[in-house]
Amino acid sequence: MPSPARIMARCAEIARHSELANGLTRVYLSKEQRAANALVLAWMREAGMQARLDAAGSVVGRYEGTQPGLACLMLGSHLDSVRDAGRYDGMLGVVTAIECVQSLGGKRLPFAIEVIGFADEEGVRFGTSLLASRIVSGAFDPALLEARDKDGVSMREAMKANGLDPDAIGTAARRSDELLAYAELHIEQGPVLEAEGVAVGVVTAINGSRRAVVTLRGMAGHAGTVPMSLRRDALAGAAECVLAVERIARAEKGLVATVGKLETLPGATNVIPGEVRFTVDCRSPEDAVRERALQGIFGAIADVAEARGLDSHVERLPDFNVTRCAPWLMAQFERAVAAEKLPLRTLPSGAGHDGMAMCAIADIAMLFVRCKAGISHNPAESITEDDAGTGARVLLRFIEAFEPRGA
Amino acid sequence: MPSPARIMARCAEIARHSELANGLTRVYLSKEQRAANALVLAWMREAGMQARLDAAGSVVGRYEGTQPGLACLMLGSHLDSVRDAGRYDGMLGVVTAIECVQSLGGKRLPFAIEVIGFADEEGVRFGTSLLASRIVSGAFDPALLEARDKDGVSMREAMKANGLDPDAIGTAARRSDELLAYAELHIEQGPVLEAEGVAVGVVTAINGSRRAVVTLRGMAGHAGTVPMSLRRDALAGAAECVLAVERIARAEKGLVATVGKLETLPGATNVIPGEVRFTVDCRSPEDAVRERALQGIFGAIADVAEARGLDSHVERLPDFNVTRCAPWLMAQFERAVAAEKLPLRTLPSGAGHDGMAMCAIADIAMLFVRCKAGISHNPAESITEDDAGTGARVLLRFIEAFEPRGA
Repeated sequence: MPSPARIMARCAEIARHSELANGLTRVYLSKEQRAANALVLAWMREAGMQARLDAAGSVVGRYEGTQPGLACLMLGSHLDSVRDAGRYDGMLGVVTAIECVQSLGGKRLPFAIEVIGFADEEGVRFGTSLLASRIVSGAFDPALLEARDKDGVSMREAMKANGLDPDAIGTAARRSDELLAYAELHIEQGPVLEAEGVAVGVVTAINGSRRAVVTLRGMAGHAGTVPMSLRRDALAGAAECVLAVERIARAEKGLVATVGKLETLPGATNVIPGEVRFTVDCRSPEDAVRERALQGIFGAIADVAEARGLDSHVERLPDFNVTRCAPWLMAQFERAVAAEKLPLRTLPSGAGHDGMAMCAIADIAMLFVRCKAGISHNPAESITEDDAGTGARVLLRFIEAFEPRGA
Repeated sequence: MPSPARIMARCAEIARHSELANGLTRVYLSKEQRAANALVLAWMREAGMQARLDAAGSVVGRYEGTQPGLACLMLGSHLDSVRDAGRYDGMLGVVTAIECVQSLGGKRLPFAIEVIGFADEEGVRFGTSLLASRIVSGAFDPALLEARDKDGVSMREAMKANGLDPDAIGTAARRSDELLAYAELHIEQGPVLEAEGVAVGVVTAINGSRRAVVTLRGMAGHAGTVPMSLRRDALAGAAECVLAVERIARAEKGLVATVGKLETLPGATNVIPGEVRFTVDCRSPEDAVRERALQGIFGAIADVAEARGLDSHVERLPDFNVTRCAPWLMAQFERAVAAEKLPLRTLPSGAGHDGMAMCAIADIAMLFVRCKAGISHNPAESITEDDAGTGARVLLRFIEAFEPRGA
């Protein structure tokens, strides 16, 4: 059986490799990442796997099936972190997958298992999220090798300094016939499972997102001299827009929409705001729902602007469509949850994950583990040892009972 | 008769004395102010006045009445400016008063006239608004001599560098029995007169103001993972407060209330705002109305916070009560307006003026002149020559027909 205590201890052990003395930051191609990789490689070998770094620096362990060279069930998550991160985001999925392989005790299955620790999902160093999984799925753009970090070091230079050959990066790509599926265990990073009192949830989809930057322009003026009836106050208009975003999001099940950033110009106590800029971030497991909500939001903004005599401008940022988890894989996770006698909770993922890249070469699935208060990307990120154990047992049942599609 | 062309030309001539090559900035005890003072002193003498600088550096011209030493009707405004200012705010009142004295053509009245050009009303250099008029009204705090400008120069040092004796500053104070009244012509700095198509307005009061800084605290979270129902979004709460401020202000005649500054923390596109800080600025010609509106605003903020599970904190800043214009002086301005066959418009002043200090030693009155689009504290500040002439003719009629209280 998987050891919850060892999972927790290993997450703590990896977290010690950080560029911060007090807190966790570990970015792509750093010496802290090399140290973390060395730990993971050793744990993989201890679990009976052949372990290596791929051409991009991701850690890959392979546990052969009943005969060599079989297609694999790929498990994993990422080993890099955001700045001042928690210790479970990414790492828990890698450590738990290794723990499950170790729990097989050498038993061979009719398929291979690979565990991957992606070297760069967060994209902190070079601004390239899902970098390592895009490389594995064959979607790498070589132009990114010239991207530079804040110190001016290019990705190409950093790879060489880590003993990697930037011109061989294409060899890290995998073919779809090598993979039976990609399955990832991850902390929820949201409060739903905790609110409902369940330890794990089966993910239905990774939500698509659309972002926009909205500018409202009115007329700045002296806060003491311009009567209310003659004002064109950009902030009062923006306030109506913020509430419209909230109202529209609440009306659509599973949709979230957020105004996270709002700037007021000129921004003085005694001046009526002449211009306000704010962001809109809208996510849903259903592209059609998200599009309908967005059209509602943009319509509401236009109505507010017209009613108040403001100019409005909406700049749309690049769209990400929803990534669906494969129903046949979800069904197998649901059976594993039932076998553990746990209540079944399915939920979409609001955050992005490597599955968004891996879906190009494999059907994907995810299992979420409850985290405290939904807090993530924060040192206060926390899970219980019990929940780590529950997640590991469900994943192990999923692996042991795994049947390839159409098998 | 007053010359509108000369008024406009003199406002332009003073405006050339600026620390900005393109634009107007003229602060207390600067070489630009010394140059402007020299112009004003010369114009006062040309108009038949004895002219001098007082101990604080304000320009004072005296036009004797039918016998020497009579109490005076004091006219004036200020000669300093805000940064990147317009050329009429302050200067128009000084220039027009001199023009009116010149128009008397040597005719003596049964009272003296003094014209004052206050050296510091805006308070840009030392952060001390109404400084010169507070000195004249005897309300100067000597501790202010140690206030320092952005270059570390104290007011005491700057006075000495300008040939003024900081220890003699008290001699600039005037006794109430020296003054029959204080009357100021000023641009409106708001859009009311323009919107109603009238050139001048008689001011009823200088509005009191109250300001507060409000902090709302909720819970930051991932914009993709926290469902709408579990959010405590500080910005959505603040949006309701902004609209409550507007709604309450609209419901009270003559009241204005403004949220001019609003900051969102942490302020990222994909993070639910955990904290928002915003200002409230509330002004009214009636202290009771303003207090009632404020209580309504603070109550609304508390209600929003409670309904949304936010913490709220309101920090009140120092209060300024309303300064009323004297009805007996308003009546004389109204007769002057009628004698010019102009429609009568009375209105409160939303901005602050030297009358707020002068009321300690004299009854006060103000005449507003229409300005373009209500724009002030801005290089685009603009009036017409016609309106400058109308303002001057009304002020001259007011002077010629002036009767001291109880006369």
